[in-house]
Amino acid sequence: MATRIDFRTEPARYRHWKLKFAGEVAELIMDVDEDGGLFAGYQLKLNSYDLGVDIELADAIQRLRFEHPEVKVVVLKSGKERVFCAGANIRMLAGASHAHKVNFCKFTNETRNAMEDASLHSGQKYLCAIRGTAAGGGYELALATDHILLADDGNSSVALPELPLLAVLPGTGGLTRVTDKRKVRRDLADAFCTVEEGVKGGRAVKWRLVDQVSPNSKFEASVAEAARRLAARSDRPADAKGIRLTPIERSVDPDAIVYSALKVEIDRSTRRATLTLSGPSAPAPTSLEAMQQEGAAFWPLRLARELDDAILNLRLNEREIGVLIFKSQGDPAEVLTYDAWLAANTQHWLAREILFLWKRVLKRVDLTSRSLVALLEPGSCFAGTLAELVFAADRGFMLIGGFPGDNRAPPTLALSDLNFGVYAMSNGLSRLATRFLGEPASLEEAKAAAGKLLGAEDCDRLGLVTSALDHIDWQDEVRIFLEERASFSADGLTGMEANLRFAGPETMETKIFGRLTAWQNWIFQRPNAAGAEGALKRYGSGVKANFNPERV
Amino acid sequence: MATRIDFRTEPARYRHWKLKFAGEVAELIMDVDEDGGLFAGYQLKLNSYDLGVDIELADAIQRLRFEHPEVKVVVLKSGKERVFCAGANIRMLAGASHAHKVNFCKFTNETRNAMEDASLHSGQKYLCAIRGTAAGGGYELALATDHILLADDGNSSVALPELPLLAVLPGTGGLTRVTDKRKVRRDLADAFCTVEEGVKGGRAVKWRLVDQVSPNSKFEASVAEAARRLAARSDRPADAKGIRLTPIERSVDPDAIVYSALKVEIDRSTRRATLTLSGPSAPAPTSLEAMQQEGAAFWPLRLARELDDAILNLRLNEREIGVLIFKSQGDPAEVLTYDAWLAANTQHWLAREILFLWKRVLKRVDLTSRSLVALLEPGSCFAGTLAELVFAADRGFMLIGGFPGDNRAPPTLALSDLNFGVYAMSNGLSRLATRFLGEPASLEEAKAAAGKLLGAEDCDRLGLVTSALDHIDWQDEVRIFLEERASFSADGLTGMEANLRFAGPETMETKIFGRLTAWQNWIFQRPNAAGAEGALKRYGSGVKANFNPERV
Repeated sequence: MATRIDFRTEPARYRHWKLKFAGEVAELIMDVDEDGGLFAGYQLKLNSYDLGVDIELADAIQRLRFEHPEVKVVVLKSGKERVFCAGANIRMLAGASHAHKVNFCKFTNETRNAMEDASLHSGQKYLCAIRGTAAGGGYELALATDHILLADDGNSSVALPELPLLAVLPGTGGLTRVTDKRKVRRDLADAFCTVEEGVKGGRAVKWRLVDQVSPNSKFEASVAEAARRLAARSDRPADAKGIRLTPIERSVDPDAIVYSALKVEIDRSTRRATLTLSGPSAPAPTSLEAMQQEGAAFWPLRLARELDDAILNLRLNEREIGVLIFKSQGDPAEVLTYDAWLAANTQHWLAREILFLWKRVLKRVDLTSRSLVALLEPGSCFAGTLAELVFAADRGFMLIGGFPGDNRAPPTLALSDLNFGVYAMSNGLSRLATRFLGEPASLEEAKAAAGKLLGAEDCDRLGLVTSALDHIDWQDEVRIFLEERASFSADGLTGMEANLRFAGPETMETKIFGRLTAWQNWIFQRPNAAGAEGALKRYGSGVKANFNPERV
Repeated sequence: MATRIDFRTEPARYRHWKLKFAGEVAELIMDVDEDGGLFAGYQLKLNSYDLGVDIELADAIQRLRFEHPEVKVVVLKSGKERVFCAGANIRMLAGASHAHKVNFCKFTNETRNAMEDASLHSGQKYLCAIRGTAAGGGYELALATDHILLADDGNSSVALPELPLLAVLPGTGGLTRVTDKRKVRRDLADAFCTVEEGVKGGRAVKWRLVDQVSPNSKFEASVAEAARRLAARSDRPADAKGIRLTPIERSVDPDAIVYSALKVEIDRSTRRATLTLSGPSAPAPTSLEAMQQEGAAFWPLRLARELDDAILNLRLNEREIGVLIFKSQGDPAEVLTYDAWLAANTQHWLAREILFLWKRVLKRVDLTSRSLVALLEPGSCFAGTLAELVFAADRGFMLIGGFPGDNRAPPTLALSDLNFGVYAMSNGLSRLATRFLGEPASLEEAKAAAGKLLGAEDCDRLGLVTSALDHIDWQDEVRIFLEERASFSADGLTGMEANLRFAGPETMETKIFGRLTAWQNWIFQRPNAAGAEGALKRYGSGVKANFNPERV
């Protein structure tokens, strides 16, 4: 494994993607630098990708939303002559640790989701123009777009060859998007996922794998026409001016990462990280122009980006940190004024983008396989948007009164309109609605309490925290919880949390993370794939894998 | 591993359960024989169970429906003094192969589902009366009932201690039934699943873990009262007389199992089993009395039981058989008359039970982790109920015309009313509705074609089979499919099939099998649980497990 993975990038530093702009249409061109792998030991041939390639893609998708409100359609295409994208790089996968593979797949799918989110919520539609082969993750990328156009040239094809070639699954959403997004008939899906060479031309349309085929001679015209049609369905603002997503500022020490509104402190001996979020230091803006003017420095946007970066850093670079402790400091009433401002301006493109960014970041928290706990102590500001972290946490502890010698007022928690739907989880429900699935009356009670600064006993009665504790019990119970959590099996916790966090309805997203990913994790462990004689290890060696035929 | 596991049993042979009858209430008493384990090497202490115990439970649940239409409420209780049930036996789990563990968990959950199915569809309600500890699988068993009554005696408790004790999950529906059936708040569920000693008394009610507590002095009276209340909600028939589920007759050879209406031929060299179902040999009955008179010999009931036995046998005893080939022989028109008879008598308790048994057996097929293929050849009778196997299969091949030298008429497939809702899959949809998720018009076309004997080209056009092939293509394509399937990774196929078979909506059942089971499978492979220093191996040794703290 290489050094610390950095998720910050910007177009000027891209090695694998190009962005071209022409009015309401942007081109997002995949042109992977073979020698630009994140780690040593493999070449990114045939537009295959590793995490580094996907980090740039995620950045591009984000920037298109914030920096380019004028873009209605993004055309995803390849910069290589004969291949669209060969999917995740096999040698990288064969050499990666289990934990890296799992996190790579998770991030990659989150990036796909971000494309779908841009289409659904920001009216920024994606068009995939495939010339050459789109195989494995390459086709999964296409599946995340709104419209797939395949060249009908006897050569171009879509394929999910993971099972026959590698003994693993198209596990980054592939199988689920085939069955649940494109609703491919199951026996055809089965046939498709077992032919190495994939499917071409008219059959790809008939099987619902692509939306359209076009001969080479008319390909560019067909792309342009499809882009026009998609643009007509977009509700992107007409005259808005984007804001620049300036680099996230942070200082990195061995045991701390300090951002402008977030501090991450890492205690390796106890395997805990404490994330302390800071409330706003200035009042909410009074005009849309002022918000736009602040741009990336605007507190809610800045904090969301910092939290996203911190979570990704912990996921990929700090694998032995098992518990994330959320704390906050600031004035909860001030947080509420920001929430009120955003809630009042959901029709404005930038406010909308900020809310949807928070939604994605909070989902990223939900999907982080670490134990999450919120500690509500004096001086904290878990209000509205920030209170979502309390509801995202596996446990929330709230102090009754104060600590001895600490003069600050007892902690409060406050709800805002944003807690009741805007920040839907992957299951389509708000965190509070999910929390109160079994007691709908509690959801109504919580709504009635919105806007109030609620003390520990109120929060306990309303079911908003797990325990309200005085300072004596606090010392014991929080300590015991943290010690206990560190003593449990990391894998057992991952499985338990993944199940308990997502009650209620399932969506394509929860299916991908909760079902498909779990199967893929399992298969990544099996000797048939990952063993010394497994298909992943032997791929390209000329020697066939040696399989244990036993079924479970 | 012991010799062949036999799923056939009957009350006179039970070692672990007792049934007592008193009018509309039956008692189902768990009293596990410590020395009655299915395999050597462990004792079933404290009402802990292995597959053998669950086979008897499944048999009892089935018999209660068919043999005891008068029973409205089943009281599930323990025959031991101080323990309700300690869950799955740990030493059995620690010693079992991965494949056995996975199949054991699957069967166990299917048995839980059968209790829920009896309550939902047959009005046979389950009441769980807990005195002593209900831990792990013991509490999971309780979760499958309609009402949990816990003794409030300072000792009785419910617990899911799998994570803290064993580094695995309450994976037989436990986590999902806690969040989705009982809708326990997620932070309380998290707390509950991490306390070894479980939860007692009023807190168990407050956390929604049980429905009621009762002091020891009033316990029997509370059980009786709760049973009366449940009975009042039942729609079991008043004066019906049950039928006896006579032993399934079969002859077992090394490479064939022959039942009255089903033949299973096993080809170990190619790792295939061919299941040939026989259509009815006599016309459908003309009166309800005649059907009742036939009892367990009634063709649809007989075949369903035989198919269930065959599938379970293949799952547990033939792990290297990777492909199940479904064939049939008989008159499709005759099958349709049976379907019409059952469809016309859904108000009759026995017809209803037979339909729901088919529903469960077909779900068992869906959930069997083997490649399933249906071959529609001359002489076959895939009509109505039997056609469900074509739609349950991963692929369906249908012959156009005949084979050279074979004078039989070309194969046909026919649909009946029963194909459009009665046999819902775990996802709540019929197999055809799931198949045509992306093309609802095809579902309507199929409905319009019901009752007709459809030839290969019609079936192809209607999307009912994967391929219609003449005899020359048939030889090649079927052979290639079967050879290819045998060449793929068994694990990759298991994961792929589990994902492709269940498109569309998710239910508690699909969540358990598709999400929870997958996580549990993964964890069963991880060194933290199953390794030499893992918690499952070291349980009871006095030595603590040694965990790798890395998160994924």
